[in-house]
Amino acid sequence: MSELAVKAEKLDASDELAAKRAEFVLDEVVYLDGNSLGALPAAVPGRVEDVVRRQWGELRIRSWTEGGWWTAPERIGDRIAPLVGAAAGQVVVGDSTSVNVFKALVGAVRLARSADGGGPGRDEVRDEVRDEIVVDATTFPTDGYIAESAARMTGCTLRPVTPSEVPGVLGARTAAVLLNHVDYRTGRLHDLPSLTAAVRAAGALVVWDLCHSAGALPVGLDEHGVHLAVGCTYKYLNGGPGSPAFLYVRADLQDRFDSPLPGWNSHVEPFGMRADYAPAAGAVRGRVGTPDILSMLALEAALEVWDGVGVAAVRAKSLALTDFFLECVGAYVPKGRVECVTPLAHPERGSQIALRCEDAGDVMQRLIERGVVGDFRRPDVLRFGFTPLYVGFADVERAARVLADVLAEVPA
Amino acid sequence: MSELAVKAEKLDASDELAAKRAEFVLDEVVYLDGNSLGALPAAVPGRVEDVVRRQWGELRIRSWTEGGWWTAPERIGDRIAPLVGAAAGQVVVGDSTSVNVFKALVGAVRLARSADGGGPGRDEVRDEVRDEIVVDATTFPTDGYIAESAARMTGCTLRPVTPSEVPGVLGARTAAVLLNHVDYRTGRLHDLPSLTAAVRAAGALVVWDLCHSAGALPVGLDEHGVHLAVGCTYKYLNGGPGSPAFLYVRADLQDRFDSPLPGWNSHVEPFGMRADYAPAAGAVRGRVGTPDILSMLALEAALEVWDGVGVAAVRAKSLALTDFFLECVGAYVPKGRVECVTPLAHPERGSQIALRCEDAGDVMQRLIERGVVGDFRRPDVLRFGFTPLYVGFADVERAARVLADVLAEVPA
Repeated sequence: MSELAVKAEKLDASDELAAKRAEFVLDEVVYLDGNSLGALPAAVPGRVEDVVRRQWGELRIRSWTEGGWWTAPERIGDRIAPLVGAAAGQVVVGDSTSVNVFKALVGAVRLARSADGGGPGRDEVRDEVRDEIVVDATTFPTDGYIAESAARMTGCTLRPVTPSEVPGVLGARTAAVLLNHVDYRTGRLHDLPSLTAAVRAAGALVVWDLCHSAGALPVGLDEHGVHLAVGCTYKYLNGGPGSPAFLYVRADLQDRFDSPLPGWNSHVEPFGMRADYAPAAGAVRGRVGTPDILSMLALEAALEVWDGVGVAAVRAKSLALTDFFLECVGAYVPKGRVECVTPLAHPERGSQIALRCEDAGDVMQRLIERGVVGDFRRPDVLRFGFTPLYVGFADVERAARVLADVLAEVPA
Repeated sequence: MSELAVKAEKLDASDELAAKRAEFVLDEVVYLDGNSLGALPAAVPGRVEDVVRRQWGELRIRSWTEGGWWTAPERIGDRIAPLVGAAAGQVVVGDSTSVNVFKALVGAVRLARSADGGGPGRDEVRDEVRDEIVVDATTFPTDGYIAESAARMTGCTLRPVTPSEVPGVLGARTAAVLLNHVDYRTGRLHDLPSLTAAVRAAGALVVWDLCHSAGALPVGLDEHGVHLAVGCTYKYLNGGPGSPAFLYVRADLQDRFDSPLPGWNSHVEPFGMRADYAPAAGAVRGRVGTPDILSMLALEAALEVWDGVGVAAVRAKSLALTDFFLECVGAYVPKGRVECVTPLAHPERGSQIALRCEDAGDVMQRLIERGVVGDFRRPDVLRFGFTPLYVGFADVERAARVLADVLAEVPA
């Protein structure tokens, strides 16, 4: 047994999250693609069967009231809230991430333009016309596309910049800023506290996309004064393919949150069937249409794996996993064959490692054939996601070893 | 056995759709609430179990390509298309009805304002400013709320009128008209062909909400030249609680359909991760974010009950069921205790019967306790939906008989 394999064994033996792996359905594969689709939590199949056969098949419409279907979006939102550092009553689940980006960004522009603005600095800027949306140009594309639409529909211009350029472009014209917490490609973790503070100081509103951080590392939405946030639930939250996304609206902004998608589920009296719209108070205001119950209750079951788990412990293990992966890659892979594009500094690293590599598409295909599943991002990136709840250190050592084997076969 | 019970037996014996009932999970209850939540098709539980345990649990991300997850929205759209009279390639599934109303209505306004308009009459009106959205004031509230938002975000004013007033208010300022095919409360079926023709003649675009007609009666979208349509899949299509809605964009308008929710799933090259948005051709352009696979594939299994079933046969049985229900109510219920608010004329009747009744909430509660499940709509309506695929004539006779029993207990 190699030295690193022995080290992996020791690390696994002292891993306080190791027992969590048994709460997932896993096989002999090393699954490092949980940042695309989380593995199946063992509690989900039975729950889904109950939802389909008993709640839908037997109770039918009674489940809307008696079975807790109607209140699922806010109940599950409250289950996610502590994982992103939010007190209860600020997170609601439903719709896709893209749709929630639209709600949040249009809502942010409207908040920035409303009488008392969104935060500090509002006295200085209340008379200005806020007509600019700043967006992370390196973000996952859908955020940019939706931001463009939000800008067009609110009379704003869109200003795409890199996250490091954000502080320099903020000003009295800035209405809202849409940022990604962790870059989907490089795995770079952006500085949420300082960027949020900069946006607040400019009297603008910030919207954070937490797709690649929720469930992987501490976010601290309340602590850092974030205005709005969105995120998906099928990556580190293991909610299942296309499971509903979430929307966070800070408590003190909810009364002025003016959604561009005011469906009947966000009405103060949804069954009053009133012709005039009057929005509900609280996180419920972020709802739109009838919630997608099958997917939503699968997510609720999936979130049970978080019982007794703190995000700080998850983060500590995540950094240990990615550190150890880099150590193993350094030891096994000949110099020059891969280049790490994920920052080495812990405060700048999410829960994935992206390696630039020649013929990355072919290399990933071979890795998958040998039971190491990551993914390929064009043009030349091998992406490996590390989900601390079910990935162990022996998995990491094996992944690096198989990568070295594959690279030995593929001409440099 | 009463005369009507004998008649019911005969009608059931000659019902060509009677065998379809075995394809649903039903019990001894008379379920007349399929216009709220369709009953569980027997094929669904096994399919959902396969999606969860094998497709997600074992194949994981491979299912996006190998398992057909990625193309599900358009594939399932094509399964729904013939049920609403649409050729393939025009229907896509995903998001809630409310979100699709927003896409369709904003898209309609933009089409009406584009160089060559939406249909006949465009030469006469191309220079006018189209700044009005007409909406059915009696519609299901969410349509009105979303129409208000669409109007606000496209610089239009909203003009709520009753459907019969629509032809009189159309003009050169009309951009789009949002109508409900069947009124959710009264069960009134509106005249889609003539209203569509009137909107087209005014050079405006029409959006039909098919929530209460899709799967219940012929719609004829292509035949009648409808521009856009939306509908839900959890009523007469039995897709399950909150199952994804659908969007129809007429083939010749798709190239100019300009969605307000241009998520990455509607990009011409979604995995190209390009910063600039370029919309896909065809129905796919109506997609937004990652499709909700669990709910979507449950819907796909639910649609298998339509194999070998024509909508014309469904409509014929639907009218026979509602006629027979009115006959039984007339025979069993003392005069003056209920008043039918659903039109008696077949061309004006959907697949439900709404009876105005004193203490309707209490009466419905007692009906449900005795195994006849309809629903109550404020302030005074008993609503009974008739799903021809699983409701029989004996059910109808029993429902009317139990209604008479209940009314005999409740003081007039």
